[in-house]
Amino acid sequence: MSDAPARPIVPVILSGGSGTRLWPLSRRAKPKQMLDLLGGGSMLGVTAARVTDDVLFAPPMLVAAAAQAEAIEAALPHAGRLILEPEARNTAPAIALAALAADADDVLLVLPSDHMVGDPAGFRDAARRALPFALEGWIVTFGMKAERGETGYGYIERGPALGEGVHQAVRFVEKPDAATAGRYAASGRHDWNGGIFLMRAGTYLDQLERHAPEIAKAARAAMEGAKRQGRRLLPDAAAFAASPALSIDYAVMEKAERVAVLPVSIGWSDIGSWDALYEVSPRDEAGNAIAGDVLALGTRGCVIRSEGPLVAAIGIEDLVVIATADAVLIVPKAQSQRVREAVEALKEQGRSEWT
Amino acid sequence: MSDAPARPIVPVILSGGSGTRLWPLSRRAKPKQMLDLLGGGSMLGVTAARVTDDVLFAPPMLVAAAAQAEAIEAALPHAGRLILEPEARNTAPAIALAALAADADDVLLVLPSDHMVGDPAGFRDAARRALPFALEGWIVTFGMKAERGETGYGYIERGPALGEGVHQAVRFVEKPDAATAGRYAASGRHDWNGGIFLMRAGTYLDQLERHAPEIAKAARAAMEGAKRQGRRLLPDAAAFAASPALSIDYAVMEKAERVAVLPVSIGWSDIGSWDALYEVSPRDEAGNAIAGDVLALGTRGCVIRSEGPLVAAIGIEDLVVIATADAVLIVPKAQSQRVREAVEALKEQGRSEWT
Repeated sequence: MSDAPARPIVPVILSGGSGTRLWPLSRRAKPKQMLDLLGGGSMLGVTAARVTDDVLFAPPMLVAAAAQAEAIEAALPHAGRLILEPEARNTAPAIALAALAADADDVLLVLPSDHMVGDPAGFRDAARRALPFALEGWIVTFGMKAERGETGYGYIERGPALGEGVHQAVRFVEKPDAATAGRYAASGRHDWNGGIFLMRAGTYLDQLERHAPEIAKAARAAMEGAKRQGRRLLPDAAAFAASPALSIDYAVMEKAERVAVLPVSIGWSDIGSWDALYEVSPRDEAGNAIAGDVLALGTRGCVIRSEGPLVAAIGIEDLVVIATADAVLIVPKAQSQRVREAVEALKEQGRSEWT
Repeated sequence: MSDAPARPIVPVILSGGSGTRLWPLSRRAKPKQMLDLLGGGSMLGVTAARVTDDVLFAPPMLVAAAAQAEAIEAALPHAGRLILEPEARNTAPAIALAALAADADDVLLVLPSDHMVGDPAGFRDAARRALPFALEGWIVTFGMKAERGETGYGYIERGPALGEGVHQAVRFVEKPDAATAGRYAASGRHDWNGGIFLMRAGTYLDQLERHAPEIAKAARAAMEGAKRQGRRLLPDAAAFAASPALSIDYAVMEKAERVAVLPVSIGWSDIGSWDALYEVSPRDEAGNAIAGDVLALGTRGCVIRSEGPLVAAIGIEDLVVIATADAVLIVPKAQSQRVREAVEALKEQGRSEWT
């Protein structure tokens, strides 16, 4: 590492998600990355802090929905460029915008704005270890230890070792069925795809040109017509709309040749459900993860949060109870994924509470 | 009945209760009788309507806490006298105030303001059948069919028949243990004491003089010093404070000689808990009793009410969920009685939400 330049990595924080899975706390106007789920500030703020130092990281670039511009600038007054997506087109086009805003030789660390990393020092160390491979033209993915046969995640299969704990990635499988996921988790050769990638901007754009040329073309046209407003960069909406909406996994990772995986143990969680939040939250002696104004009597194994009303929980077990000023959710912890159903039902009813 | 005078019965509605068992809907400032629990208006309004006709009932007298005067006058603009208790001293003194405000020959129908009667015609018929006995000097209690070995109620034991379905009452037992309550419910000789009594004002005062003379004396002094303000009657506070705080059951019924019981089946419930409300509420096809802004998905056997926020219930069973603007309760239906614990805990913490 001794011959690497100072602050050689440009973090690219993707802040486009809406996070309805944490409804009613997450809303369109306050997506998951704006929530303080673990008591240390917003997920976005914690993510930005994770990639802030004077050694490894340049100021982060942000790619976000236009509607979130003010909230992000308020949350991160010292961050770098803010690229405002005219509309959500998934991660491959979003990352293309950032890659085009960077220099081709910049090494980008792409990361979601709303995931938890319990071991930020381990995370930085992993970025440092991945850097030489990125400089050599690899796209290095961070492989999260597959702790169970989760069907909601993508899996990366490790191939031959490239050195320093880095392997060639030989296969990407998105959301396998339960039997396959179980085999993967037990195999010792598969990691969860946490959506964290290190690569040169030029490497990404080359691979995108080859495997998803329509995305590359649309992103390039959008950036050629982009407007600057202070730190904001507004790509051309009509040009960007021509891009297919694809994830980086589908558009690039599954097809590119030089993709590597760096297995890490950094306390990662996507906090993709109330149940997942429970798993990473501190709990009281009765196993409850409680935040806000809550009175719990004879209550065990629950997630209870209030952003307003007093919540009195008596004699309940293994439930999620989330109270805001205008909406209250009650669902068994094991059925947390069904929150989507409530949000869908509210959309269908034209109810504003879901937003 | 043909020689009875027109409108021979003076209803006396007791509206002194606070009803913390239906927290967080019931509060000190909005006790249970002010709530619309069954969709037909406040319990007090429904109770007043039950004793309003041009044949049997004179305008009702109300005995209530002074703090409720305005709410009651707004709710019942056409009721009769409103006797404002300077402080809550239980039912025996409260009824004494009403008896003193009436003529000695008036027949009083004493009834709680916050109970449900599903069969108001049956209720009126029972009052009509009890009337001759009251005129002869009996205190006639309405015996509610003991449907289960409920330990929270008082029981009345039937003695010899006096005629027309009326029996002498031979014993009052308040809140027996579970084994005793079970025996009573199975005996066919015990009824629940629903707190509804028919008697001449003079009969009650005579019995009170004999069995609880301190109450009679304090009530008399309080009424001698009472102030009138329109329809309001304000007994003297200092005099009333001298009264022991006793229920009519304890002060009179358990001791008086001529006490009768009229077993009735009038769809009575004291709605003394959320579980009890569930039992008497209409339910959807999944067995949920729902009121207010509620989205229920895969939810069964629940009581869910909202007075404000949207409540989204997903995959829950046999729970009580009550949401108001400032407090949310979640408790298993079978543990509804434990709501008191929450209210007590809040009192101890000096929290205003309980009030």
